[in-house]
Amino acid sequence: MSSHSLDFLFSPKSIALAGVSADAAKPGPAQWYLMSLIKFGFPGKIYPLHPSGGEIKGLRVYKHMAEIQGEVDYVVSAVSARHTPQLIHDCVAKGVRAAHLFTSGYSEIEDSDGKRLEEDVLQIAREGGVRLIGPNCMGIYCPSGGMTFAGDYPDQSGFPSRSGSLGLISQSGGNCIYCIREASERGLFFSKAVSYGNAADLNECDFLEYMTDDPETKIIAMYIEGIKDGDRFKRALRQAERAKPVVIYKAGYTETGARACASHTSAIAGSTDAWQALFKQVGVIQVTGMSELVDISITLAFMKAPGGRNVVVAGSGGGVGVQAADDITAAGLHLPFLHVDLRRTLRGIYGTEAGSMFRNPLDIPPLGSIDHHVGAIQAVADSKDIDIVIMQFPLDLWALSRRSVLMEHFIEVVTALRKSIAKPLAVVLHDSITVQARRLEEDARARFAALQLPVYPSISRAAHAIDRYIRYNSRHRP
Amino acid sequence: MSSHSLDFLFSPKSIALAGVSADAAKPGPAQWYLMSLIKFGFPGKIYPLHPSGGEIKGLRVYKHMAEIQGEVDYVVSAVSARHTPQLIHDCVAKGVRAAHLFTSGYSEIEDSDGKRLEEDVLQIAREGGVRLIGPNCMGIYCPSGGMTFAGDYPDQSGFPSRSGSLGLISQSGGNCIYCIREASERGLFFSKAVSYGNAADLNECDFLEYMTDDPETKIIAMYIEGIKDGDRFKRALRQAERAKPVVIYKAGYTETGARACASHTSAIAGSTDAWQALFKQVGVIQVTGMSELVDISITLAFMKAPGGRNVVVAGSGGGVGVQAADDITAAGLHLPFLHVDLRRTLRGIYGTEAGSMFRNPLDIPPLGSIDHHVGAIQAVADSKDIDIVIMQFPLDLWALSRRSVLMEHFIEVVTALRKSIAKPLAVVLHDSITVQARRLEEDARARFAALQLPVYPSISRAAHAIDRYIRYNSRHRP
Repeated sequence: MSSHSLDFLFSPKSIALAGVSADAAKPGPAQWYLMSLIKFGFPGKIYPLHPSGGEIKGLRVYKHMAEIQGEVDYVVSAVSARHTPQLIHDCVAKGVRAAHLFTSGYSEIEDSDGKRLEEDVLQIAREGGVRLIGPNCMGIYCPSGGMTFAGDYPDQSGFPSRSGSLGLISQSGGNCIYCIREASERGLFFSKAVSYGNAADLNECDFLEYMTDDPETKIIAMYIEGIKDGDRFKRALRQAERAKPVVIYKAGYTETGARACASHTSAIAGSTDAWQALFKQVGVIQVTGMSELVDISITLAFMKAPGGRNVVVAGSGGGVGVQAADDITAAGLHLPFLHVDLRRTLRGIYGTEAGSMFRNPLDIPPLGSIDHHVGAIQAVADSKDIDIVIMQFPLDLWALSRRSVLMEHFIEVVTALRKSIAKPLAVVLHDSITVQARRLEEDARARFAALQLPVYPSISRAAHAIDRYIRYNSRHRP
Repeated sequence: MSSHSLDFLFSPKSIALAGVSADAAKPGPAQWYLMSLIKFGFPGKIYPLHPSGGEIKGLRVYKHMAEIQGEVDYVVSAVSARHTPQLIHDCVAKGVRAAHLFTSGYSEIEDSDGKRLEEDVLQIAREGGVRLIGPNCMGIYCPSGGMTFAGDYPDQSGFPSRSGSLGLISQSGGNCIYCIREASERGLFFSKAVSYGNAADLNECDFLEYMTDDPETKIIAMYIEGIKDGDRFKRALRQAERAKPVVIYKAGYTETGARACASHTSAIAGSTDAWQALFKQVGVIQVTGMSELVDISITLAFMKAPGGRNVVVAGSGGGVGVQAADDITAAGLHLPFLHVDLRRTLRGIYGTEAGSMFRNPLDIPPLGSIDHHVGAIQAVADSKDIDIVIMQFPLDLWALSRRSVLMEHFIEVVTALRKSIAKPLAVVLHDSITVQARRLEEDARARFAALQLPVYPSISRAAHAIDRYIRYNSRHRP
C-alpha cells in the first residue's frame, strides 16, 4: 500500500456526504461539511446521502449510494458508528476510493464493542479496496483541491482558500483547527492538513510519506498521539527529514498525557525517552505544545538563516528592554553590547545627547522620524556584531493617545527595514490586554503577516523559536 | 528615616506640577500628569508651575513656587535634569515634603555629569528635608488618595479608580504600567503602586517597609533591577514575608539582563545565585517575568488554598485535553484518573453511553444542559481524589456559529460552580487569535474577573502559578 497514490484524497472529483438530513431542523456535522464545501468552492460533484431523501441547498439528497448515477471518489461519513459497516459495504459496491469517518465511538471508547466495530469496518474496507481516514477525526483541508472541514457555516470565516507551504498531519481535529487558524492569522498558509484520528487504516506514516514527496509542502508539522508501526515510522521520519524540516509535538510526553492519548484516539503513546532519542537522532524539531509548533513553523518559513546568535532588540521602553535581555539570554541567544563607534553613529542620527538608550536593547525614541529609525536600525544591522534584528512593540505600555500614531509609524519603519536589511528580522507584538491595544495589535499583526515577517507574542517565544531554528540550521547547513 | 511616615506620599493634600506649559501647542509629561490627576479626581489642590505663567484648564500657572499662597505637599517635576537643583532649592524654601522627578538624564546615562547631578540634587533634598522619588520614573498610583500617572488624556481609559489588595513596587515605569493594566483587566486591583526609577533617595527598602505595614496591602509584588542597601533589604524582606506574600521579579537574572539594568536605572544587579538563595531562604516567590508576576499575584488573591495537587480539567476538545494533561503534569501537578464509580455517576447525569470523555481531562459534551454540567463538575469536585478544578475554554476551536452561545452557557456554569463548590476553581480562557474568538474572550474574561475568579491565558501558565501557590502554602500553612 504505497502512499504516493494518495493525491486523490486531497482533490477528489466527487464527494458523497453520508448523514446529511434535508431537514433544516436537524442540522448536524454532515450538513456542516456540505455547507463548508459549497462555500469553499469545492469544484467537483457533491452528493448528500440520507435514508429520508429530500433536497438541500438545491442538491438532491440520495436515499442510497446505489442511486447515485456518477462515480463517487470520496465519502465523508457522519453516520453513527453502528451504521458504518453497512456504509462501507455500500462504498465497496460503488467503487469509492476513500471514506473519511468523522464519527467517534470506536476504539477510543472504554467499551470493547468500539474496538471490535473498528476492526470490522477496517476489514470490510481492506477487502473492498476502500481507504479509510479516521474514524474520530475532521479529515482533510486542501485549498488547492477545494477540500475543507471548517464547519463554520453560516458565519464568515472558514479556513483560508489561499495555499501555502506548511503540511500538517494531526491526530487531533481540534489541534488541527487551532494550528490552521493560528498559523494562517500569522501569515503562514497550508499545502495540506489532515486530521486522522484513530488511524484504523491510513496513519501517520502514510501521510508523512505523502507529505515528504509532495512538492507543495516545504515544511512538515505533526501532532501525534501514538504510532501504529514504529519501524515504518522511523524510516518515514528519516526520509522526511532529509527532504524538508519536520516539527513534531508528540503528545503524551508526560505519563498522564500518555493516558489522555489513549482516551482520545486509542493511541499507545510509548516511552517518552525513546521518542526524544529518536527525534534527536533523526534531526526532528521536537516541541511540547501547539503554539510552539506554530512559532517554529513560522520561523522556518519566514526567517532568513541567522549567521550567529547575536541579537539586537529595538523598541521603546526601559523595563521591557531589561526583561527582553533576560528572556533572550535565558533562551541561549546573545545580546552584545553595541560598540562605542556604533553608539556614536546612532547619537549622530538622532542628534541626541549622551544617553542610555543606545546600548542593547535599543530604547529608540518613540517620536523620532521614520528616516532616523530606519537609518539607526540599518546601521546596527549592518554591524558585524549583529546577526538578528528583533523589533518589539509593547502596545499596552504606550500612552493611549499616541498608540495608533506610534504603531503606524513603526509599521512604516518595519516595512522599510523588511526591504533594506540583509539579516533576519523578527517582530514581537507583545500580547496585550486592554481592548484598545488589542485592536491595534490585530491590525498590526495582519499587516506584518502580509509582509511574511515572523511575528511572535512575546520575546521569550521569539527567542526560543529562533534558538531552535539556529540549532536546526547548524545541523543542516553546517 | 523611617518608612512608616510615608503615608503622605500616597495622599498629599496639594501637588505642584513643575514644567506645565500653558501652551496647548507644547504638550509634555507635566501636562499629562495634570490632565490625569484632574480626570482621576485628585481631591486636593493642584498648582501648575512654569516660568511662562498663563492659565491651563482653568488653573493659574504659577511662574515660581514662591508665588503659590497655600502649602505644597508634593511636587511632580517634568523639568529637564539640569534645572532640577534649582527646583529642589525652591521646594526646600516652600517646605515641600516630597518631590517626584519624572525626568531622566541622571545616573543612568553614560555621561558622568548625570551621576554628579543626581548626587547634587540628593544633597540639596536631604539637607532641606525633602524626600525624593526617582529620578527617571512614573511616581505614584494610589486610587484611595486620588493619585495616578496614567497619562492617558485625552482618551478614555486611565487606571482604575477602584482600590484593591495588591501593592506594587516597580523600579521600571513601563513594567509598572503593564502590571496595573494586566492585573486590573483580570480583576485584581491595587492598594498602591510606585515606580521609583533610579532610587536616589527613597528606594525599594522604604517602599517595601511601607507596604509591609500598610493595612490596605495584602500582597506585595516587586519589580527590582538593583538594590541600594543589601543588609537593610534582607531585613525588610524577612519582615515583609512574615506579614504577607511577596512576589519578586528580580530583573537582570541573566548577565546581559544585569547590564541592561545598569543602562536603565543605573542599578547594580548583583549575583543571580545570591539573589536566588536569599529569596528561597526567606520564602519569597521569585518569578522571571512580568506576566508570571501577575499570574501569581492573581492566584494568591483569588484562589482558595488547594488541599493537594490533584487537578481535574473540564472543558471541550480532545487534543486540547491531551495537551492540558501534558502541561499540568509538566508543571508538577497531578491529573488523577477518575474512579469508575464517579465516571458511572457522570454517565448517569448526562445519560450518555460509555465513552472516553469522562476520564480526566473531562471532555464535557458542549451542548449538554447547564444543570448537567454543574451537577457533573460538582460531583467530581466533591470527590476526595480531587483538590482543584480547572475549567478550560479553547475559543478558537469552537465552530464560529456556536461560539457565543457556548460561551454564555459556560459562563452560567462557572458562575453557578463559583458559588457551589468548596474547592479552588480556576478558569483558562485560551489565548485566541481569530478576531471573533478574541471578542468573546475579552467579554468572558471581564465577567470572570468580576467574579474574582483566577483567569489564565493557557493551561501551562495556570498550572505553573498553582504549583507556586501550593509550594508557598506548604511553607506557610504546613
